[in-house]
Formats: sequence, structure tokens, C-alpha cells
Amino acid sequence: MAEKHIGKQTVALKNPPTIKATASIVGPKEGRGELKQCFDLIIPDELWGESSWEKAESKLVREAFAKLLQNAKLSNDKIDFILAGDLLNQCIAASYGLRETNVPFLGLYGACSTMAESMSIGSMLIDGGFADNVVCLTSSHFCSAERQFRFPLELGSQRTPTAQWTVTGSGAVALASQGTGPYIRNITVGKINDLGITDINNMGAAMAPAAADTILTHFADTGLVPEYYDLIVTGDLGKIGKKLCLDILRMNGLNIEANYNDCGVMIFNLNEQDTHAGGSGCGCSAAVFAGHIYKEMMKGNLKRVLFIATGALMSPVSLQQKESIPGIAHAVSIHRSLD
Amino acid sequence: MAEKHIGKQTVALKNPPTIKATASIVGPKEGRGELKQCFDLIIPDELWGESSWEKAESKLVREAFAKLLQNAKLSNDKIDFILAGDLLNQCIAASYGLRETNVPFLGLYGACSTMAESMSIGSMLIDGGFADNVVCLTSSHFCSAERQFRFPLELGSQRTPTAQWTVTGSGAVALASQGTGPYIRNITVGKINDLGITDINNMGAAMAPAAADTILTHFADTGLVPEYYDLIVTGDLGKIGKKLCLDILRMNGLNIEANYNDCGVMIFNLNEQDTHAGGSGCGCSAAVFAGHIYKEMMKGNLKRVLFIATGALMSPVSLQQKESIPGIAHAVSIHRSLD
Repeated sequence: MAEKHIGKQTVALKNPPTIKATASIVGPKEGRGELKQCFDLIIPDELWGESSWEKAESKLVREAFAKLLQNAKLSNDKIDFILAGDLLNQCIAASYGLRETNVPFLGLYGACSTMAESMSIGSMLIDGGFADNVVCLTSSHFCSAERQFRFPLELGSQRTPTAQWTVTGSGAVALASQGTGPYIRNITVGKINDLGITDINNMGAAMAPAAADTILTHFADTGLVPEYYDLIVTGDLGKIGKKLCLDILRMNGLNIEANYNDCGVMIFNLNEQDTHAGGSGCGCSAAVFAGHIYKEMMKGNLKRVLFIATGALMSPVSLQQKESIPGIAHAVSIHRSLD
Repeated sequence: MAEKHIGKQTVALKNPPTIKATASIVGPKEGRGELKQCFDLIIPDELWGESSWEKAESKLVREAFAKLLQNAKLSNDKIDFILAGDLLNQCIAASYGLRETNVPFLGLYGACSTMAESMSIGSMLIDGGFADNVVCLTSSHFCSAERQFRFPLELGSQRTPTAQWTVTGSGAVALASQGTGPYIRNITVGKINDLGITDINNMGAAMAPAAADTILTHFADTGLVPEYYDLIVTGDLGKIGKKLCLDILRMNGLNIEANYNDCGVMIFNLNEQDTHAGGSGCGCSAAVFAGHIYKEMMKGNLKRVLFIATGALMSPVSLQQKESIPGIAHAVSIHRSLD
């Protein structure tokens, strides 16, 4: 077993990297949601002065990166790696949004699990002595995602009750080898899980088994109990997936209900904002982590958080070819202090 | 500067990971090319018994992974991470091809640079103490790529002379903490370069500046000279990009012509196989590395290789929106022994 492995698939960082700063930018609908106070910037409309939604998403990435450097008081030449990805075909939001940064770039694709994936790899690169400063960043955009994955918005298609609403937003995290926390301590990289869900309008159901698998593995590997964390938060199962995740965990003897929530449930006001099952998209967990969770940790309201971003690894083509939807989830444990 | 950094953007591995085994599977056209002797398997036709090209590409991935475990004499429970990606929207070749592996999975998107990206991250995860065995894998497929990026094959569209031919193939590499080499020693992670090329049929021109940038940086960071390597090999610039890369390097005072080649030039017989500027696609550099270069190193014919896989980070949507094509390239230095 590798030196820093504990249990089956969890690693424990010897010199836990610190989160030096975060940045978050969201769209107007997210800016009217439950977490509206916590974001760095709420853009006035979905185009944000650009000629397409895809270009607007790249701008979200570009500006989130710029805001992050400002918040972290870092210049781009101090960043060793950017780890970023998004949902658009060929991850163009990240590559176009970051092409002027002049920073070594490692592109990721983990669907909506990308924020936890980037923080996982970023933390290992710092703990391994390969980097002092790493930027982890993801984005999503409601309009570009609808166009690519579902229907053109112009059709005005009706959404099913199980559908989630892709968050317009970008979240960025600056990880550093030196600092005063919060610290990344343990990482559980997930496996692909596919239980045969084929409904593109029920991503929560497709991702819940992966989330539950990673959570069960995390607790088995670390020997911790759910109460150890102030918050266990999945990264966008929405309200249907959240319930399924709890059910699967309960069937496996783990009850996390007391301190469990989901970024897709938290970001909108589900009763009033007509987002059906809740938020989704890479930008959802990224903005909720960067905007809300990090700030609550800095205020001392959360001391230990287990952050599990979840992704559905399908494409419109795979669904047209009658494939089911594989899910994945990666968990990162974040501690306000190293006590 | 981080502990294992040398120069601006290169890392030197303290305990260089070993390449335990490789596996390569290619399509029929590749199986008639210059390197036909070196692959583990040549499939009889592009569908390989599947009902779609996308499913056939997933099968390439699945079978390359299985072949790799066999060649490395490893079972899946010994693999700490799979690092994989491909060109298909949402990287479905990798996620569907690997969903039954039951191994922690980190999805990457680096376009055709993915093989070097996966070997870079994989090496750092091993050297950092997070893994004993990592699988790095990519794929591409001529028919699925043409359908997605260019024209449906059924149209029989004429190709421009600068166009490259996407390789049908998958290459996989097993990296391990213990072994007898070849060893990964230095890694230069590239930056995004965009010099304003907008011709989707001339990817070589779009990627050449990124390749040249990473090569120049590698030699500046390490203080090495081109003659130090027996082979400097870019990952799929094709013959036009190869010439441009040489030109840019020469303009910057570096002449690598004596020992330079390109995987896209090597894989086909360019005079007879009608592939215009040569091969491309994630599977090109992956199969050439796994099939040809690794075996030449094991035979002792190559002692030191600098492998630079190159990617074009665009999408059909970004080109429709009049964007230029950003390129990226990552370099990995591989040594037969640690002398």
C-alpha cells in the first residue's frame, strides 16, 4: 500500500495544504437564491456583455480566476498549476477562460465532480512537493448547458419534476503549501458507479449511488463517524438524489441525516424559484463551496466539512445509444484547524 | 519555489516511477502503417462487433485496460488510480470503457495532450507517496471523431491537404513505484498557447507553438541540450505542425532536428496511406508511445526519450463562434535506467 494511503481508497495528507482564498461568481437567478449574500459577484444577466452563452461562461472562468488572485493576494507567476474543467464539449469554458493566464494548465473532466477532483489532485501535488500554489476552478452555465445537453432554450420546453437546474456560476479555490487553514486532510477518490439509470432528467438518481459509495468508503477507510463532521455536503444531487443517497447509506448501516446537506438543494430557494429538484452543474458545488462553505469555516461556524462533489459521466450521444448513466463522486475533508 | 521544482515549470521526481508495462490496440489502417509490428492488437474493422463507433471506442479502452493488466501482471485491486480521457464529448470513451474496473478514477481532458498529462499526474501521485500503481490511458477513433468534429463519414467529404487523420486506437501505460524502468524523471507541464489559428483543418499549426513553448521551457529549466535525448517526440503535430515546431524552435535558437520526430508522422505511411498531414487524436501518441517507443526502450534502442503530447483545446462550437484554437503540450522525460 502506498505510503500515504489509509484504508482502501483514501489518502491522508502529511502536510495538509491550506485554502488561501476562494472566489465565486454566479448568475442572476443564483443571486436571488438562499445563499445570495455569500458570492463575490452576481452578474446582471446570462450573457454578461458577451455575444454567446459559451463566451459568457468563459468570462465567468476568467473573472473568477482574476478575483481569486486578488482575494489570495497572488500574482499569476506564483501559481504552479491550474486544475480546471467544465461541462461544455471539450471543456472550452476552462480553456478559453484561462488561455491568457500564462500558468501551467491541467485540464480535468469529472462532470459535476470536477471541483472535488481538482481539489483532490491539487492537494496531492502540493503535499507531494510539486507545487506551492495551485488554483482549482470549475464553471457551468444554465443556458450553454441546456443548449448542449437538453433543448434549445428558445423552444420553451417544459421540464420534468425530477430535472435539476444547471447553476450559472464559477467557483475557484487557491490551495497553498503554507497558510493558516482551512486545511485539506483526507481525500477519497471515487470509482465509477452505474446502477442502470437511463433518465437524463433524473441525474440525482444516477449520481446518488456514487455519492453513497464514496461516503461509505470514506468512513470505512478513516474509521471516523458522521458526527465527526459539522457538515457532510454532496455536490449536486438535488432533493431527489439527496433522499436516495440517504436511503442507500441507511440501507448500508450509515445514518448521516443530522449533518447532511446538498449544494444543489442549498443554492436555490426550492419552494419559490421553480428549479424543480434543485441546482446542478460543476459551478453549483464550486460556487457553494467557494462562496458559502469556505466563508462559514472562516467565521468559525463550521470546523470540519466533508465535501463530496458528484458527477454524471454521460453525454447526449451515449444516451441516444441507449446507455445508462455512470456516476462518480470524490470526497475531500476540510478542517478549520489542525487540532 | 516548491521542493521538487526545477526552473520555471519543470518538476524533477525524487523517486522516479517505473513503467511496468504498456498496452496498445489500433484500428486496421494503423495496423497497415509504419509501426504495424509493434501493437498488441490490430482490430479487424472500425466497429469491432459493436453497434456504434462510440461503443467501439469504449471497447478499445476496455480491452486496452484488460491487456495492460495482463502485460503488467496486475489485478485491478492493485491499481490505486486510473487517469484517463479521450476526445469524445464528456469523455464517454473513457467513462464507459472503464466503468466496470472498480478502480478510483480521475478523468482528464487535455485533447490530444492527454497521454502526457496522465503520465505527468500519475508520476507525481506515485512520487508523492499517494499510489503504488497508476494506469494512464487514452483513446481516439477515426469515425467517432469525424462525426463529432468534422463531417459524417457518409458524406464522403474531401479532406484538405493540411488535415490530419484521427488514429483509431488506445494506448495504456502502467506506472509503478517499484520496478526496473524505464523511469519517468522530469515533467514539464505546459501552458495554453493561442497564436490565433482558426483553421480547423490545420491543427498542426495550432498546436506547434504550444509544443515549441514546452520544449524550449524544458531545456531552459533542466539545462539539458537536445543531444541528451535519443528521441524528442511530439504527440501529433503531423508533418505540417512538425515543420512549424522546428521553425519556431530554430527562431528561438534551438535546433532539435537531428533526433526529433512526431507520432502523427510515424504511425502511418504518409506517402501511401492518404492520411494527408499524418495522424492525430489522443490514441495516436498513446499507441505510438505504448506500442513503439516503450518497446524500443526495452530493447535498448532508445535510452532517453522526451515525449511531448500536444492538444488543440477547441470545440466545433468555439470555432462556429469565431474563436481561434488554443494549444497545449506537456513533456515527460523517460529514461531506460537511472544512471
